[in-house]
Amino acid sequence: MNEKLSFASDYMEGAHPAILDRLLETNMQKTAGYGLDEYSEQARKKIRTACSAPDADVFFLVGGTQANATVIDAFLRSYQGVIAAETGHITVHEAGAVEFGGHKVLALPQQQGKLNSGTVRTCLEMYRQDENRDHIVMPGMVYLSQPTEFGTLYSLKELETISACCREYGIPLYVDGARLAYALACPENDVTLPDLARLCDAFYIGGTKCGALFGEAVVFPRRDTIPHFFSIIKQHGALLAKGRIAGIQFDTLFTDNLYGTIGRSAVLAAGRIRDALRAKGYKLAFESPTNQIFITLSREQLTVLSDRIEMSFWESIDNDHTVMRIVTSWATQDEEIDRLIACL
Amino acid sequence: MNEKLSFASDYMEGAHPAILDRLLETNMQKTAGYGLDEYSEQARKKIRTACSAPDADVFFLVGGTQANATVIDAFLRSYQGVIAAETGHITVHEAGAVEFGGHKVLALPQQQGKLNSGTVRTCLEMYRQDENRDHIVMPGMVYLSQPTEFGTLYSLKELETISACCREYGIPLYVDGARLAYALACPENDVTLPDLARLCDAFYIGGTKCGALFGEAVVFPRRDTIPHFFSIIKQHGALLAKGRIAGIQFDTLFTDNLYGTIGRSAVLAAGRIRDALRAKGYKLAFESPTNQIFITLSREQLTVLSDRIEMSFWESIDNDHTVMRIVTSWATQDEEIDRLIACL
Amino acid sequence: MNEKLSFASDYMEGAHPAILDRLLETNMQKTAGYGLDEYSEQARKKIRTACSAPDADVFFLVGGTQANATVIDAFLRSYQGVIAAETGHITVHEAGAVEFGGHKVLALPQQQGKLNSGTVRTCLEMYRQDENRDHIVMPGMVYLSQPTEFGTLYSLKELETISACCREYGIPLYVDGARLAYALACPENDVTLPDLARLCDAFYIGGTKCGALFGEAVVFPRRDTIPHFFSIIKQHGALLAKGRIAGIQFDTLFTDNLYGTIGRSAVLAAGRIRDALRAKGYKLAFESPTNQIFITLSREQLTVLSDRIEMSFWESIDNDHTVMRIVTSWATQDEEIDRLIACL
Amino acid sequence: MNEKLSFASDYMEGAHPAILDRLLETNMQKTAGYGLDEYSEQARKKIRTACSAPDADVFFLVGGTQANATVIDAFLRSYQGVIAAETGHITVHEAGAVEFGGHKVLALPQQQGKLNSGTVRTCLEMYRQDENRDHIVMPGMVYLSQPTEFGTLYSLKELETISACCREYGIPLYVDGARLAYALACPENDVTLPDLARLCDAFYIGGTKCGALFGEAVVFPRRDTIPHFFSIIKQHGALLAKGRIAGIQFDTLFTDNLYGTIGRSAVLAAGRIRDALRAKGYKLAFESPTNQIFITLSREQLTVLSDRIEMSFWESIDNDHTVMRIVTSWATQDEEIDRLIACL
Repeated sequence: MNEKLSFASDYMEGAHPAILDRLLETNMQKTAGYGLDEYSEQARKKIRTACSAPDADVFFLVGGTQANATVIDAFLRSYQGVIAAETGHITVHEAGAVEFGGHKVLALPQQQGKLNSGTVRTCLEMYRQDENRDHIVMPGMVYLSQPTEFGTLYSLKELETISACCREYGIPLYVDGARLAYALACPENDVTLPDLARLCDAFYIGGTKCGALFGEAVVFPRRDTIPHFFSIIKQHGALLAKGRIAGIQFDTLFTDNLYGTIGRSAVLAAGRIRDALRAKGYKLAFESPTNQIFITLSREQLTVLSDRIEMSFWESIDNDHTVMRIVTSWATQDEEIDRLIACL
Repeated sequence: MNEKLSFASDYMEGAHPAILDRLLETNMQKTAGYGLDEYSEQARKKIRTACSAPDADVFFLVGGTQANATVIDAFLRSYQGVIAAETGHITVHEAGAVEFGGHKVLALPQQQGKLNSGTVRTCLEMYRQDENRDHIVMPGMVYLSQPTEFGTLYSLKELETISACCREYGIPLYVDGARLAYALACPENDVTLPDLARLCDAFYIGGTKCGALFGEAVVFPRRDTIPHFFSIIKQHGALLAKGRIAGIQFDTLFTDNLYGTIGRSAVLAAGRIRDALRAKGYKLAFESPTNQIFITLSREQLTVLSDRIEMSFWESIDNDHTVMRIVTSWATQDEEIDRLIACL
Repeated sequence: MNEKLSFASDYMEGAHPAILDRLLETNMQKTAGYGLDEYSEQARKKIRTACSAPDADVFFLVGGTQANATVIDAFLRSYQGVIAAETGHITVHEAGAVEFGGHKVLALPQQQGKLNSGTVRTCLEMYRQDENRDHIVMPGMVYLSQPTEFGTLYSLKELETISACCREYGIPLYVDGARLAYALACPENDVTLPDLARLCDAFYIGGTKCGALFGEAVVFPRRDTIPHFFSIIKQHGALLAKGRIAGIQFDTLFTDNLYGTIGRSAVLAAGRIRDALRAKGYKLAFESPTNQIFITLSREQLTVLSDRIEMSFWESIDNDHTVMRIVTSWATQDEEIDRLIACL
Repeated sequence: MNEKLSFASDYMEGAHPAILDRLLETNMQKTAGYGLDEYSEQARKKIRTACSAPDADVFFLVGGTQANATVIDAFLRSYQGVIAAETGHITVHEAGAVEFGGHKVLALPQQQGKLNSGTVRTCLEMYRQDENRDHIVMPGMVYLSQPTEFGTLYSLKELETISACCREYGIPLYVDGARLAYALACPENDVTLPDLARLCDAFYIGGTKCGALFGEAVVFPRRDTIPHFFSIIKQHGALLAKGRIAGIQFDTLFTDNLYGTIGRSAVLAAGRIRDALRAKGYKLAFESPTNQIFITLSREQLTVLSDRIEMSFWESIDNDHTVMRIVTSWATQDEEIDRLIACL
């Protein structure tokens, strides 16, 4: 439907064909609702295996903001807030969904979208030592994204340090994996699903941006981390009646390691685009190894490129410079990359 | 997957084949997210036409509890509650989603699942005349379901009377149409989509139970009834990134009047079952003309039937009698009905 | 200021003179804020002694609705609701303060304002046995009032049975003691402060209606029942900067058993009024032994009496009959009773 | 009770003697509850006169956090947040009370505790121009304090500019006057009560820190700015049963201009202390003209002074330097100042 080259986001197509095939194939079967069906159960088993977390509780929610708000509400007591990067998705892109649940987002400084363990520790220690701490919001958990909103990655070592800090202070660590497939497919990445299961108290494996029609798999590596999470999902309006539609999608994504490989072409494509941009003298705003590319464009460059390529607006730097985002996905075709590079 | 005859609910299959075909056909197209795509726009237009409401705002949400909580939060001021039948879905089946948003459900007595305008008027008038009304929750809107949780229908006259009462007292009327297709397909029904648009301030056209994979179309017949409803959806975690997946489904449902006819076979099937039940001396717990049948079973009947037919538990009457629900759907096959009747 | 006899409520005067004396006497002393002063500490000690609860946590809040909302929010998890009588203060007189905190009030039938343990048990057991319980609000605590909104009393035996039921089902019992002094002063009453401490998980000792300018003492008989309750108070806007103003009042009320006796004259006065009403052929709407009297008046009686006596409206029975409430207090003078009786 | 000199806060004593006298004098009168009494009405009239706002709605609440949370909830729609300085009281000192009501505090950079209109305008304009604004929290009002948490003052011109900006963007301006008496008594101040009434949509006149036992008078200069604010107060647990206790206090504070002069001695005292500090070579952390003084102390100075003077901790600058706060009040005696200066 679109004549311009389209690189605005990674949720512009439908689903990976294997997913649609399974939906078609199973369509007229009758199953129980609410995720109590066999497909959802199979998907849960496969995810447990992929995460080396045999006791994990796994729930399928519809979208990322919903998964974040539901998990955060479930972890926090009313007087607690959630630590996040000041650029974190829950901090700035979710229309106040966390506050709607009654909780403050405790926004901390970041580097390229990442929290560091020192900043987190300082925040926790300041709270502990503050004589007036009963008058302020208690930091009750840490939220981060892998990859971040800037497409950057936490290294295993960074994640281990943050996790250790959380455990020392007795608060849970939660990782938003909206684009996790693009991290897993990235050569620079050294954080595996079993690492996440070992280091986090909850994380979600993103489906929407990684080949599903919709859906995010929330994983609590330790059983019964959150009693009655099913009711909490329902209360948030996040319970899917035909739960199997999500179950079948994740069952497919976790069959034959599809999830582990689905992001590969997108990461390669992004690499080709980055190389071409550098070669043609464009300025990258951040270095990010996954499927998102951020370029600083002059007004003139912006006018020319916007005419041919659908990108997404990131931020204004000054009157003459704008950061734009180019995103590849599992669905990006080589031919599109060729045409994009030709436009530069 | 199921050897027993399965009549437990109307969300046990996937989607109407026409919907899956469209999803398949459009799968690799790139479109804008969040419902800003052409398919969603087409679906909105068709719904406006079907409702004779050219100015209607239409939004696609994922599920019924979500739609209810989001619409109700959007209408009410913090100090207001929502009037509903004591058996209403929001009153008893949504895990407190309305209260999670800060609002009380003002539960009123019902007859066969229906509110009557007299009861509603009394509640509104008592509030108005209560000298202590500033200390109690103000009734801020009326919620009802068409058909109700008991499968019964409001007549056009009943709906007009309730609507007139709401307008007299200056509060909005909202109709939950989770199973609306089964009302529209029912010979006893005299409430059309244009009637709903004329009489309500908002209603939703149910997809999940009426042939879609998921999805409910929230209709505000008058434009800008709720400013910034998009943000409210987002804040509730109810915004679908790949909005077109819902849009395509409703576009299909509103092409060639599919939505108007999709419930027909289910209603006919339910009629056949009711006749057979009566003929064999079973006792119907309520008279309901749509796709739900409620039977009062003795302990012995329950044991025998449960062995062969998957029904859903409705309520215990006493130690020896239980009300069970049998539900047909757009997907129910004649042959299943034959086998069910043979079991009775 | 009022020429009519005034029996509308028990919060029409200021404070018991002993309280004002103490406020005056201590006025220019400097103390720490937020209840960390010595007067508040003394008051807490005296309350612990009076309750035979040496480990109790005691907090001073300003008003009853505030105390209820804060304690209930503190006990409940997001997916839980609070069981209360359908006539309970939190159910009908607090403008949705519990719902504002996100929780449903699970209203149960009552007799003369009282819950009975059978009704409570049925509710808890139905939840436990409901196959769809994950879709409904979990009962998470029980709320009752001593005396009730109808001025009636739970007997020790009734309270023990409800408490035993709560413990069996593992949920806390909370008692609203807005008018507790009038129960303690009542000959029919056999529930002492140590009984409340033994049987409840929290209760509050009402000050506002029992001789204080304002203030309610929330008692958690077991230490650390609610971690961080101080922050929860602050978050609810319920923390008094000059905490000692409440502390001094409760210190005074718990010196020389003032709280145990302050309601005595009110209860005697109410008894005199009841006797006179009966003698003159008036009809009592409920039998209540404390400081509230409910009479059913014909239209004619209402007109005559309203002219001379300020009562409070309770409810309309039909077009010709109204229930009105007469309330005595610690401040009611014998001479007022004489005049009231003369009016009848 | 305290041997050290006590300058930790301005809420360490009881009330101005004139207030206690009035409470004593009126104590046994019977009046209507909930602020419907004549004293509260008189107080409202006097406040309207003092503010040159004859149509103002005036409500008496108990404390500052409570007033802020209640007013902010009343103004904002669910999808809106409140702009405040990153050092504002609602941002950091209220235990998340605003978030508990579902709203985000949009924290902006400040200078000496003050927002400037440029920063506010930028925030509003960025929202307006953001293509993704429907995914973020809409700025729905501006909150500031006069004086600020740092004891600094907005000039009339500054306040006019911010007010003009709010009106241009169509959002309300709300001023927290917890210590307003100290601003009004300050020679540097050029913002009067009528200015606040003219420029704000709501503000509160602080009682707790300015001579009352407790209490804050919330003023909406234009009638019916917030319909049903009484119910909102009740719902927040902020309604005082014996409303007259607050009414009498504000009636006294607004008799013979007591409120306009009660802060004078405190401001003079603070001036004397500042002069002495400067003379003795102490370093003031901020210049603030009202009753709060912020000094940067070396570790050694801190040890010595803390031994003799109770101050309040403000912040750590580095391992060797700490900012401490000294606060004077209406109750501070000359003799205390002399002793304090002698300690320096």
